[in-house]
Amino acid sequence: MDVVPRSEIEAAIVVQNADLYYLAGTVQQSHLFVPAEGEPVLFVRKTVSRARDESQLANVVELPSLRQLGELIVARHGRVPEVVGLELDVLPVNALRRYEGLLPGARFVDVGPLLVRQRAVKSPFEVERIRAAAGIAVEVCRRIPDILQEGLTEAAFAGRVEAEARALGHQGIIRMRAFNGEMFYGQLLTGVSGAVSSGLDTPLAGAGLSPAVAQGVSFKTIGRGEPVVFDFVPVLAGYHADFTRMFSLGPLPDRLTAAYDTALRVQDEVARRARPGVTCAELYGAAVAVAEGDGLAAHFMGHGAAQVRFIGHGVGLELDELPVLSSNDLVLEEGMVFALEPKFVFPGSGAIGIENTWAVAGDGIERLTEAPEDVHVV
Amino acid sequence: MDVVPRSEIEAAIVVQNADLYYLAGTVQQSHLFVPAEGEPVLFVRKTVSRARDESQLANVVELPSLRQLGELIVARHGRVPEVVGLELDVLPVNALRRYEGLLPGARFVDVGPLLVRQRAVKSPFEVERIRAAAGIAVEVCRRIPDILQEGLTEAAFAGRVEAEARALGHQGIIRMRAFNGEMFYGQLLTGVSGAVSSGLDTPLAGAGLSPAVAQGVSFKTIGRGEPVVFDFVPVLAGYHADFTRMFSLGPLPDRLTAAYDTALRVQDEVARRARPGVTCAELYGAAVAVAEGDGLAAHFMGHGAAQVRFIGHGVGLELDELPVLSSNDLVLEEGMVFALEPKFVFPGSGAIGIENTWAVAGDGIERLTEAPEDVHVV
Repeated sequence: MDVVPRSEIEAAIVVQNADLYYLAGTVQQSHLFVPAEGEPVLFVRKTVSRARDESQLANVVELPSLRQLGELIVARHGRVPEVVGLELDVLPVNALRRYEGLLPGARFVDVGPLLVRQRAVKSPFEVERIRAAAGIAVEVCRRIPDILQEGLTEAAFAGRVEAEARALGHQGIIRMRAFNGEMFYGQLLTGVSGAVSSGLDTPLAGAGLSPAVAQGVSFKTIGRGEPVVFDFVPVLAGYHADFTRMFSLGPLPDRLTAAYDTALRVQDEVARRARPGVTCAELYGAAVAVAEGDGLAAHFMGHGAAQVRFIGHGVGLELDELPVLSSNDLVLEEGMVFALEPKFVFPGSGAIGIENTWAVAGDGIERLTEAPEDVHVV
Repeated sequence: MDVVPRSEIEAAIVVQNADLYYLAGTVQQSHLFVPAEGEPVLFVRKTVSRARDESQLANVVELPSLRQLGELIVARHGRVPEVVGLELDVLPVNALRRYEGLLPGARFVDVGPLLVRQRAVKSPFEVERIRAAAGIAVEVCRRIPDILQEGLTEAAFAGRVEAEARALGHQGIIRMRAFNGEMFYGQLLTGVSGAVSSGLDTPLAGAGLSPAVAQGVSFKTIGRGEPVVFDFVPVLAGYHADFTRMFSLGPLPDRLTAAYDTALRVQDEVARRARPGVTCAELYGAAVAVAEGDGLAAHFMGHGAAQVRFIGHGVGLELDELPVLSSNDLVLEEGMVFALEPKFVFPGSGAIGIENTWAVAGDGIERLTEAPEDVHVV
């Protein structure tokens, strides 16, 4: 399980849904065999006819049983590959044990990070897919003034909002790569709920409906004069975007609207600097400096022990992609797509902030989530 | 990674959300350390205060960074445990590598199957939780005649149904233990959609909105005289049930209603036999015999290569629990809870069937999903 040079990997076997969809265009129950030389083969256990329809790959082969994977690979490849790449960042240990049994003598190495890094840079086609996904959030956002009502529970409010998204084609399922990663449409949080942190590595979490989930909406009813955070993850045909806008029933306290202005200035500052060649650390540092300059460092991206140390994250076929906008040295490249989410949390009052999804272009970044950015007072 | 006698496991470290909630009552970002002797300790990275509120455990300790897990365990336990159980059925390989580094010298073994087996037998408290979850499906089902309309897309129909469930407290997130396991509320499939199979190990799957998900609702519009499958997974406070009822706009073809009668008789036959001491294989065999007797074996639980070889599955904190009602020798015990879902698939027409969630009682099984079982013609 040592790290080996990429050039020594003789073949990879890809099985995780997001990676499989990226490389094979299908999530039918499959193993994608990718030799370093030669053509990839998609071995499909179920449903073969759908995989043939869905995939662009020329070689789609039936895998009657997982037990036959080794012999089918040897039949195609001529031998058991010496070094086999697997997605060891997501693959359960027992699955690795099975592959060790099926390909005796092979050494297994991790190609998860290679796939994650490759997927961080989107093709123009993928950027358009993310823009199309973003369209769901923008359209649902436009309808919120008709849905938001005093006295509605967060859960009922979310249900109505989600119904709109669903009719527009939201796929429902949100994919996260992190172990235990779970997210349901985003975080529709009102008032004090916005300041409740959880186990999630996110600036906002919410109380949730029970400790079994411990994030997202609760049975709290929506009141007047409290911040309503519409933090929504639109997902269309596999591609995620991320988006936040603010609503309220009646005016918000001055402290919150002032923080919202700071959030907009954080966004402007990052957007002004972001372009190919800039590091994540530079953007993160610039964002923190704006928050500090306005005396809001203690509220930025969470409060107290629950503060998170990033201001954004890549999005694509998963919600938690590269780049992570934190103090790391990853350099932005054209085609990277990320959500930038400056937010402020005030215990006892709630949260306020903004989030757009941006694509790194030749000389800057382009907003994929085009919607008015003022706090919408209903 | 050999199999070791249970008695040799010196301690387990539990991290997966469903297992964590089962044992610790919280899904805050935690490691639950369970020594074979002595008190369990919950090490919490985020959010400690919530974990203290949510968990019944006496020892909730802050874990400032994962790097400190080893030293904190040694401080509590007195040494690095020799044999440590982990959930190797779900834990990614790279996570195991991290634990190997944090607890040098320890040997790691799989306790996933032990946890799964233990969780298969529910306490009376858990059975009541599943009954409460079932109540969401029953109530939503009651409202469907007001929602179902000709010309509505499956996606829009699902959105409205899901909004009702959400307002009633459905947690949204469905937990599955299987790698790549994904499910969104269930399968609301109409007409031909009910006969589209996918990579899922389920009798029905549906076309889905795109190949990226390849299951569930599509943009197909709902027509008259076609079977509308309301296969719905209610989840409340962590606990799942599973439920299917049939609707249609106008009468269904005779072939489908005849198959539905067979499905009801399969259910009766299994319910008559099921009790503590009976094997899954006996129930599975009896079910298949009823389908065969009615000349419907080729349509039972799918069609063609997509047929699945089970008639039901355990439910609890995950949707895919034990017992699996297939040709296996697991013996039913009081407290086991399973969904029994005899269904028939007719390519080109759709699917029809019934599903209830049942708890194994002292001398039989009890239905937790109480709702009328006739095909509801709207």
